[in-house]
Amino acid sequence: MRGAVLYGPRDVRFEERETPKVIKPTDAIIRISATCVCGSDLWPYRGIQPVAQPTPMGHEYCGIVEEVGSAVKSVKPGQFVIGSFFASDNTCPVCQIGYQSSCQHAEFVGTAQAPVLRVPLADGTLVPTPEVPSQDLIPNLLTLSDVMGTGWFAADAANVKPGSTAAVVGDGAVGLLAVLSAKQMGAERIIVMSRHESRQKLAREFGATDIVTERGDEGVERIKQLTNGIGADSVLECVGTQQSIMQAIQSTCRGGYVGYVGVPHGVELNGEQLFFAHVHLHGGPAPVRRYLPELIKLVWDRKINPGKVFDMTLPLDQVAQAYRAMDERRAIKTLLRP
Amino acid sequence: MRGAVLYGPRDVRFEERETPKVIKPTDAIIRISATCVCGSDLWPYRGIQPVAQPTPMGHEYCGIVEEVGSAVKSVKPGQFVIGSFFASDNTCPVCQIGYQSSCQHAEFVGTAQAPVLRVPLADGTLVPTPEVPSQDLIPNLLTLSDVMGTGWFAADAANVKPGSTAAVVGDGAVGLLAVLSAKQMGAERIIVMSRHESRQKLAREFGATDIVTERGDEGVERIKQLTNGIGADSVLECVGTQQSIMQAIQSTCRGGYVGYVGVPHGVELNGEQLFFAHVHLHGGPAPVRRYLPELIKLVWDRKINPGKVFDMTLPLDQVAQAYRAMDERRAIKTLLRP
Repeated sequence: MRGAVLYGPRDVRFEERETPKVIKPTDAIIRISATCVCGSDLWPYRGIQPVAQPTPMGHEYCGIVEEVGSAVKSVKPGQFVIGSFFASDNTCPVCQIGYQSSCQHAEFVGTAQAPVLRVPLADGTLVPTPEVPSQDLIPNLLTLSDVMGTGWFAADAANVKPGSTAAVVGDGAVGLLAVLSAKQMGAERIIVMSRHESRQKLAREFGATDIVTERGDEGVERIKQLTNGIGADSVLECVGTQQSIMQAIQSTCRGGYVGYVGVPHGVELNGEQLFFAHVHLHGGPAPVRRYLPELIKLVWDRKINPGKVFDMTLPLDQVAQAYRAMDERRAIKTLLRP
Repeated sequence: MRGAVLYGPRDVRFEERETPKVIKPTDAIIRISATCVCGSDLWPYRGIQPVAQPTPMGHEYCGIVEEVGSAVKSVKPGQFVIGSFFASDNTCPVCQIGYQSSCQHAEFVGTAQAPVLRVPLADGTLVPTPEVPSQDLIPNLLTLSDVMGTGWFAADAANVKPGSTAAVVGDGAVGLLAVLSAKQMGAERIIVMSRHESRQKLAREFGATDIVTERGDEGVERIKQLTNGIGADSVLECVGTQQSIMQAIQSTCRGGYVGYVGVPHGVELNGEQLFFAHVHLHGGPAPVRRYLPELIKLVWDRKINPGKVFDMTLPLDQVAQAYRAMDERRAIKTLLRP
């Protein structure tokens, strides 16, 4: 088969890769219905996180089970399944607490930009949908593999409650789905920091009530003006830079909550500054697996449309264009069809 | 009157200072019944936090109201009162959330090692006891001004719940009272990191079930061994160094809670490390005022004896000896009687 391989900065190739097979009895092989490019794929694509060797790419996936190993019990060939970017056994003490992305046997699923994918720990990782979905549901379901679950975790970690005020730092796909999540969790006011008209529009559609275009200290000031001078109850950090995390902390009211899901790059938090900020801080790689049953139900019942973040769809063999469009911010997120 | 003044590293003098008077209509003047030396006083005493000029010291106090300004309504002369080290109006939006130590009008109360003290924002800051207490209650009540409230906040911020496992980093007065707090909040297992026999003894008396004498990575390993390999549900950080905060984070289970109250000195948290640790982080200067009514009741009803942390009592004019004894770890905490 052919799949995406990253060779170095801005050099993604669609080339021959070995077709995956069952290696361990706990594996499943999936025929991908749709995959996509993640904001976090842009870190290595831009060379900020160097790759040592040609690296297969992709960690968001959904599709039809083709084959399962002898130990797999909960999914079977023919089922449509979704899984997280971290495979997890879903039974270890860490999974039982609900942090499957830190599973004691976690394995990163990193070869999904391809027509066929091997998923380890299939029983713990994959969740089947009630039946094979209609085509229009597939983009929505695909987001549950990462971005929607990650936005949901940001809102959950930031303790969004009915009637509260939430602010979202970042208008990428995760930030936009953090808006949708905050709305679902009942936030009354949702402020999103964005400078891009198309993203602002989608944010409003997902439930944003206010847009802040300022950044840094000015952005913080603007959020304080909108929140009685004290900052938002919940701030959802969906970028991962020093500026964005500091902006999040400073935009939060004393005793408020910062949920951070942007993978930090070069971030150092000053202990004293954090101490006197008096905020709650929680985040990390989203335990997407925990949320899959609930989010699948919301999509299945057509209560949410997270797939709207895909504003570009390309055939998988044009994966290089997909990266380029996202790198140049011409696309929020690109869906790839094998 | 004479009070404590810090001139520089290890140079505390007991010397003439101006007797405080009512300056603003919201002030109260208190005749101190007891004051003490705080672990945090040792930072400037040791020169780690330099003082620019001779500085009056002391921020823990309780005593009898002598005089109040014309605007003070809730306390009156003759009452026995306790207040936090941060004066607060207790009405601003931040106070209303319960973070009085970040009050929009907060003022540090820093001249308490003296016979008489001016407390700003008396209505918001001071809480009277039901009546003038008997002498034996005074050490207990004095701790509520800072260390007991701070230990309580550590346990609260670390989400200690009935049946949970808590670990305490630090065996100073705050760490020991964090043990007592965790016990009060129903922790089933309380691990304390301590190498000092007298402190271990008091920790056990306060409710500690396990003592860990190892530090750094070895200490973390030991805590993991005691907690099913995953770390404690709640870790209470009561020191404030890079080593202690990292030890706290690494000793916490995924999804667990770190409550940190040790004032950070030279602490930098690496974003990526924090991200993958998957812990909740909360702390800062304890909003002692929030807890005063509840803690006064526990002391008044003789349910807790936090005053046991005072293993030395000196007359106020021997304040220099009090600092020395704590600096040399000959005393856990020294009470001073004017």
